[in-house]
Amino acid sequence: MAEKRVYFFGEGKADGNATMKQLLGGKGANLAEMSSLGVPVPPGFTIGTNVCKEYYESGGKWPKGLEEEVKKNLAKLEKAMGKKFGDPKDPLLVSVRSGAAVSMPGMMDTVLNLGLNDDVVEGIIELTDNPRFAYDIYRRFIDMFGDVVMGCSHEYFEEAIAGVKKKAKVKLDADLTADHLKEVVDKYKTVYRKHVGDMFPQAAIDQLKKSVDAVFHSWNIPRAIRYRELNNITGLLGTAVNVQAMVFGNMGDDSGTGVCFTRNPSTGEKKFYGEFLMNAQGEDVVAGIRTPLDLSKLKKVNAKMYKELTNYMSKLEKHYKDMQDIEFTIQQGKLYILQTRNGKRTAAAAIKCAVDMVNERLIPKKEAVKRVEPNQLDQLLHPHFDEKATRKPITKGLPASPGAAVGQAVFTADEAEQWHKKGKPVILTRIETSPEDIGGMDAAEGILTARGGMTSHAAVVARGMGKCCVAGADDINIDYKAKKFTCNGTTIKQGDWLSIDGTTGEIMKGQLPTVEAKTTGDFGKFMKICDTMRKLGIRTNADTPEDAQRARDLGAEGIGLCRTEHMFFEGDRIWAVREMILAADSYADMLNELEQAESKAQQKQIEKKYAETKKQFEGSLKKLLPYQRKDFEGIYKAMKNLPVTIRLLDPPLHEFLPNDTKAQQEMAKRLGVSKNVVRDKVNQLHEFNPMLGHRGCRLAVTYPAIYRMQARAIIEAALNLKKNRINVIPEIMIPLAGEARELKFVKDEIVDEIEQVFKRRKAKVKYLIGTMIEVPRAALTADEIAEDAQFFSFGTNDLTQMTMGFSRDDAGRFLGEYVSKGIYDADPFQQLDQVGVGQLVKEAADLGRKARKGLKIGICGEHGGDPSSIDFCHDIGLDYVSCSPFRVPIARLASAQSAVKDR
Amino acid sequence: MAEKRVYFFGEGKADGNATMKQLLGGKGANLAEMSSLGVPVPPGFTIGTNVCKEYYESGGKWPKGLEEEVKKNLAKLEKAMGKKFGDPKDPLLVSVRSGAAVSMPGMMDTVLNLGLNDDVVEGIIELTDNPRFAYDIYRRFIDMFGDVVMGCSHEYFEEAIAGVKKKAKVKLDADLTADHLKEVVDKYKTVYRKHVGDMFPQAAIDQLKKSVDAVFHSWNIPRAIRYRELNNITGLLGTAVNVQAMVFGNMGDDSGTGVCFTRNPSTGEKKFYGEFLMNAQGEDVVAGIRTPLDLSKLKKVNAKMYKELTNYMSKLEKHYKDMQDIEFTIQQGKLYILQTRNGKRTAAAAIKCAVDMVNERLIPKKEAVKRVEPNQLDQLLHPHFDEKATRKPITKGLPASPGAAVGQAVFTADEAEQWHKKGKPVILTRIETSPEDIGGMDAAEGILTARGGMTSHAAVVARGMGKCCVAGADDINIDYKAKKFTCNGTTIKQGDWLSIDGTTGEIMKGQLPTVEAKTTGDFGKFMKICDTMRKLGIRTNADTPEDAQRARDLGAEGIGLCRTEHMFFEGDRIWAVREMILAADSYADMLNELEQAESKAQQKQIEKKYAETKKQFEGSLKKLLPYQRKDFEGIYKAMKNLPVTIRLLDPPLHEFLPNDTKAQQEMAKRLGVSKNVVRDKVNQLHEFNPMLGHRGCRLAVTYPAIYRMQARAIIEAALNLKKNRINVIPEIMIPLAGEARELKFVKDEIVDEIEQVFKRRKAKVKYLIGTMIEVPRAALTADEIAEDAQFFSFGTNDLTQMTMGFSRDDAGRFLGEYVSKGIYDADPFQQLDQVGVGQLVKEAADLGRKARKGLKIGICGEHGGDPSSIDFCHDIGLDYVSCSPFRVPIARLASAQSAVKDR
Repeated sequence: MAEKRVYFFGEGKADGNATMKQLLGGKGANLAEMSSLGVPVPPGFTIGTNVCKEYYESGGKWPKGLEEEVKKNLAKLEKAMGKKFGDPKDPLLVSVRSGAAVSMPGMMDTVLNLGLNDDVVEGIIELTDNPRFAYDIYRRFIDMFGDVVMGCSHEYFEEAIAGVKKKAKVKLDADLTADHLKEVVDKYKTVYRKHVGDMFPQAAIDQLKKSVDAVFHSWNIPRAIRYRELNNITGLLGTAVNVQAMVFGNMGDDSGTGVCFTRNPSTGEKKFYGEFLMNAQGEDVVAGIRTPLDLSKLKKVNAKMYKELTNYMSKLEKHYKDMQDIEFTIQQGKLYILQTRNGKRTAAAAIKCAVDMVNERLIPKKEAVKRVEPNQLDQLLHPHFDEKATRKPITKGLPASPGAAVGQAVFTADEAEQWHKKGKPVILTRIETSPEDIGGMDAAEGILTARGGMTSHAAVVARGMGKCCVAGADDINIDYKAKKFTCNGTTIKQGDWLSIDGTTGEIMKGQLPTVEAKTTGDFGKFMKICDTMRKLGIRTNADTPEDAQRARDLGAEGIGLCRTEHMFFEGDRIWAVREMILAADSYADMLNELEQAESKAQQKQIEKKYAETKKQFEGSLKKLLPYQRKDFEGIYKAMKNLPVTIRLLDPPLHEFLPNDTKAQQEMAKRLGVSKNVVRDKVNQLHEFNPMLGHRGCRLAVTYPAIYRMQARAIIEAALNLKKNRINVIPEIMIPLAGEARELKFVKDEIVDEIEQVFKRRKAKVKYLIGTMIEVPRAALTADEIAEDAQFFSFGTNDLTQMTMGFSRDDAGRFLGEYVSKGIYDADPFQQLDQVGVGQLVKEAADLGRKARKGLKIGICGEHGGDPSSIDFCHDIGLDYVSCSPFRVPIARLASAQSAVKDR
Repeated sequence: MAEKRVYFFGEGKADGNATMKQLLGGKGANLAEMSSLGVPVPPGFTIGTNVCKEYYESGGKWPKGLEEEVKKNLAKLEKAMGKKFGDPKDPLLVSVRSGAAVSMPGMMDTVLNLGLNDDVVEGIIELTDNPRFAYDIYRRFIDMFGDVVMGCSHEYFEEAIAGVKKKAKVKLDADLTADHLKEVVDKYKTVYRKHVGDMFPQAAIDQLKKSVDAVFHSWNIPRAIRYRELNNITGLLGTAVNVQAMVFGNMGDDSGTGVCFTRNPSTGEKKFYGEFLMNAQGEDVVAGIRTPLDLSKLKKVNAKMYKELTNYMSKLEKHYKDMQDIEFTIQQGKLYILQTRNGKRTAAAAIKCAVDMVNERLIPKKEAVKRVEPNQLDQLLHPHFDEKATRKPITKGLPASPGAAVGQAVFTADEAEQWHKKGKPVILTRIETSPEDIGGMDAAEGILTARGGMTSHAAVVARGMGKCCVAGADDINIDYKAKKFTCNGTTIKQGDWLSIDGTTGEIMKGQLPTVEAKTTGDFGKFMKICDTMRKLGIRTNADTPEDAQRARDLGAEGIGLCRTEHMFFEGDRIWAVREMILAADSYADMLNELEQAESKAQQKQIEKKYAETKKQFEGSLKKLLPYQRKDFEGIYKAMKNLPVTIRLLDPPLHEFLPNDTKAQQEMAKRLGVSKNVVRDKVNQLHEFNPMLGHRGCRLAVTYPAIYRMQARAIIEAALNLKKNRINVIPEIMIPLAGEARELKFVKDEIVDEIEQVFKRRKAKVKYLIGTMIEVPRAALTADEIAEDAQFFSFGTNDLTQMTMGFSRDDAGRFLGEYVSKGIYDADPFQQLDQVGVGQLVKEAADLGRKARKGLKIGICGEHGGDPSSIDFCHDIGLDYVSCSPFRVPIARLASAQSAVKDR
């Protein structure tokens, strides 16, 4: 006998169940499941995906016997509903929907109210005494059937109804009378005939057959095929077809419709919540013509229905073990549950539900941690704009650092600082930011840039500061001279108010009201549940004692990345840094000059000159030493008893020099050298591709004294705190190593310096020396690298840049298109590219651990705060992830989810 | 019994032989070998490396029995020479030299004339009647022994002799008389006493013992240890010590000294060649005081000696099967061969020797190909400066493209072209070059840049053109406005003559005489020998028919890389390119705008605008089509019947726009747009790291029409030639792919375009589509990439940049130091980094071939012309290497050597 093709559901029974997704599609299986549970879903039947396969195998024909099977089920359905398909006296109307095992875009949309025709519509008028309703569903059906099933564009129907509205001098569809709608029905039939080339089918069974064909057809349209290819969806037979009875809530006062939640989706409170309207359709609720009533009122209106409904609500929540969002309709005193699904909720509600459900023993803890979307937590940690406020964005940039900020536009970092001192809130607006702008960024409420991607300087620094930032808003044309910008016709001058949303990327003119962040008591409880689950350690990227403290408060277990370059910019120290750079002349330069020397005397002169320059160079470094030492003491204190990983100087030296002529002149004056000396140095240090330039430990190969100074400050600070019984284990991190001998060279210099400190101070502290793995070559030779590294930290920002060949400051311009064309699934600077970059990370971790037992391995790129990337880190067995302070809770949750997924 | 410690050689016998390098060191084994051959080397003995080991094991003492063994051999030596060590009557003098199995810097230098003391020197005066000679060797011995053995710096001795010269009012050592030298001896002894703290040792055996100790000691000085570490030299026991009798050519008219070659080292001619002086020391020849005589004259002077010498010459050449460079001394009628080694020779001589020796059946062909150093061939292929001309370089840059060029300095590409038209030879001098300068570079005799490395734009393009280039001469300060540069005190104005040497990097003021390149008849024969040996195919990187023809003449078997961007600059087409760029607005921009559209009407307006821009964009591309088609036709003709790999557009679009305001204004005027439009476009396209920017196939993801136009030109050109019965198989190469889906997207566009051409023309040609592997991610996912690529070509320039994180335009500033500090063995842009980048290349090749059988794989980076990199390509089984035309012969030879090494 042939396989069963059609599966009935309804009246508390069903041929299928939730496990039969492959055969019934997701929708069909779910309807069967609910029906079996005794939930009164409108009955119907599902044509299996196996039929779709047969349909294609036979070249687009219904397989033999299918029609009979459909008709048999239709009869069953008629019986269940007590109505007849196509019968004007008491017509059964149905909906037809596609439904594959995996939902995919491009598949056929729903067709509602199938079974209507010229006679049936009259029957309905008689039954409901509501001609407007009858003509309205008829004209909608013709439109939908024409568009979705027969391919006659919805636009043509729109034109037709627009004509009627114009003639009737009304603006809204809702203002059309029954007569108008009757006219619309006629026009629609004409449109149909014209574009389809055939009369609108009057036979209900014809309508059904054509719709089923259309569903099958939509399985193999190019968009669906492409989607399956891109998402590696294979092994599916085809799509199922769901045919289900229509029910109406507007068939009198014993009818009604509504939406309800088993708990409050805004707060999570365990209390039924919802709205309904009697004698109404779902649309009426949406359209806002009538105000729906609170669910509790249903008790008064119809106590029986209320009791029935709340019973099903409890049953469904218990069955699905989650808060349910339920649509229901009451048709002439009979309750139908149209749909139930896990309810969408705010972050606060998600957390409360999870914590409550654990307490209610509805779900185990490991299930609870799955119930909150990690990225949602951002809502709780940053202020946001009041949802009630109307937004009129003038443009949209990248949502670079979440939160909401309101302030007056300023265009330089200096002005930001000055205005801030005067108590004015500002939005620092720049084409792009550079390390020179740190002070102004810190003073600003929010940062807005016209250029740069999600990992541009502005974005990274802002996230580190927990400050709202919209980056790369490229519609903005900034005119620094005129102190203003224009954007799609709007002009914003210095001092004008701006509201920027770092969560959506939107930029609004004026002042929008904001709502402060709150972390409820449940937040802490939930986080504790996460902590008992997770295996990954969570550290933070923090450069200041304040950031460190904030991260610690949010649960960080140490610092995974303390960048030292930001410290070079603060206050007066930048002058010592600049003095140092002017004095910096490399050994290589000297060798060149020596080679060209014509006499021993000249050689000696050159050597002398270099000795002097070196002295000057090291003198400037000595000025920086006490600053650095104090920086580290502050951070150690905030992170008392927790590990602190300090990355030695990373950016190229030119980042510390001013670019514009005026600032260069100021620098020359202050350092007592000629303008040309400064200009020449800036020119000399200019790089075509600074990302691949003279930076990271390459600086220390040329100028070992820089890292020596930093190592000394790190160790002396630790010794100072040790005296006060504060324990610290500094982890000194060498950036950008690409070769084992390079790492060894730099490490040897650092160790030598540290040994000198120990000797001088007659005291010791424990410390580690490790490296960032961020150059592909380092990953490829990680076994060799591990010989001189006590820990690895993957710098996945740079590793992504180099492995994929994308500059994160430039790629924003085309990466969007890469994602929209399906070439990459996501922006690789936001989600770790597991196939390419991830492969290197995994191999390097394996190689490193093979070469050094117990090698500690973490990740400190931006990916350390991204759930999908954290999941990858968990899978490959890293020890910890490190992320910006505000993402620490997200990382705690995400890593708990990874651990739970494992078991 | 203990192991033998001391090995005698001399009188046609020896205890050791050439295979005993481990025990006797290289030098000792060689002396033993020659001695066994019957060649009259001055006799002596070698203290084995095993003794060095014993010496260290016993804490720096001579092992028991060693002294006796040394004395026994010393006695044997005295007998052989008929002289006595330390005996004033007929003293035996000896030399002491270190000699490990691998020669290494830092080891002890030679000590000569050991055995001299106050008595012996008087004896020598008596024997030679030459007091000046006696005192001279004595004072030299004290100096050498003091400096090398006892660590008393040579400088102190220099001060002492300078004092004597000053008093004697002479300038040169050679002008000092015997009496002066006697005084010098006294002063030297004082110096010795003062700095060593002991008297100069008079006992010859003491001198010997101390010298042997010094040799052992030098084995473990830090520099030697470091050298062994860096070069992974392990498993050596220690150093050997060679003690050998001194012989003198200045002991009368029956004595003499000379140097001879078994063949002419300049031409390779098979004819004895050399120089000698009777009654003279080697130094006399070097000092140029007396003019040495041609070797042929020795026949007249001393026929017996001549016959003996030439017999040994023939014997040695036959034994070592190579042209020998022999030092000999005649001491009182007895011939001694002091040294023989394979003679250094010019490239021409190397080739002639190799070809002749094959003909003489002295060596087999596979040996012949080893006899020429591939990089030497450069000498034959480029003009060079006359070796006789004196050079006074004003500075040195990087030897970026070999050859010699003389011309007048100009500072812009335009001027270069104008002066060239007037028949003036010019050196185009730029801070750096950009693609805009191509015309000027082509017009210039040579190119000089102040910035950029060996693979900077200037360097790469110049090598492609076979044009002399010195790059990155950073002492040069160019002032474009004043049209001049200054360099170490010299000023060069526009029009001043410059001579630049692209082989050494030297820059000279004025006009140096040049010598044209010649490829002798032997060159062709030698290359044919190479071709029969090699397994790798050799292709060329060529962008023009001229380059293609030149490469073909030099043996190229196809084009491995034809860059199409250079074609975009020529003549008028740059205007079409610029027009296209102005019209280019990406799909992503449109999507953004569409998203922000507030109404359907606005959406339609945006769509319309984009349709217009697209039309304009494609219109400009259409203007380029006929140019491109003609370009390809020319190249196909030159490469008739050989494969041509064409790389589609690679550089970012901003490279085609002018940077300076004036040129931007010109562009605006010419294209009929406002200045601001051009300026905004330039700003909009600016990139922070263009190397990692919007380029390569990323352009085609945004603007598929660009590659479509190129594909169309490629195929139409092939069809046009097919009509004329010229066979072409174009290989279309997609650059910078990093992901399989990206490659597929671009490939699908190209294939679709090609199918349209086939349909339109009603004709087909065969073609391949492949990709460059230059992004690390592409290498890591090469199996997936191979599914849509019919060939791979490794772009090792970019692959090196990204894998190692070095910008080739910037790294020049610090890479030198990386090499000098031993972090990298060589500049990775010149020699492929086999450990890191090579690993990716190998793995990608393996993955690619696993996924696609018979995948053709080559390499087209600069490394394709570097012998060590070619060897790597051979080892991992690539199909071909591609290099610039002038390096084709080098690649043919290098790959032959790799193949020969295999067998």
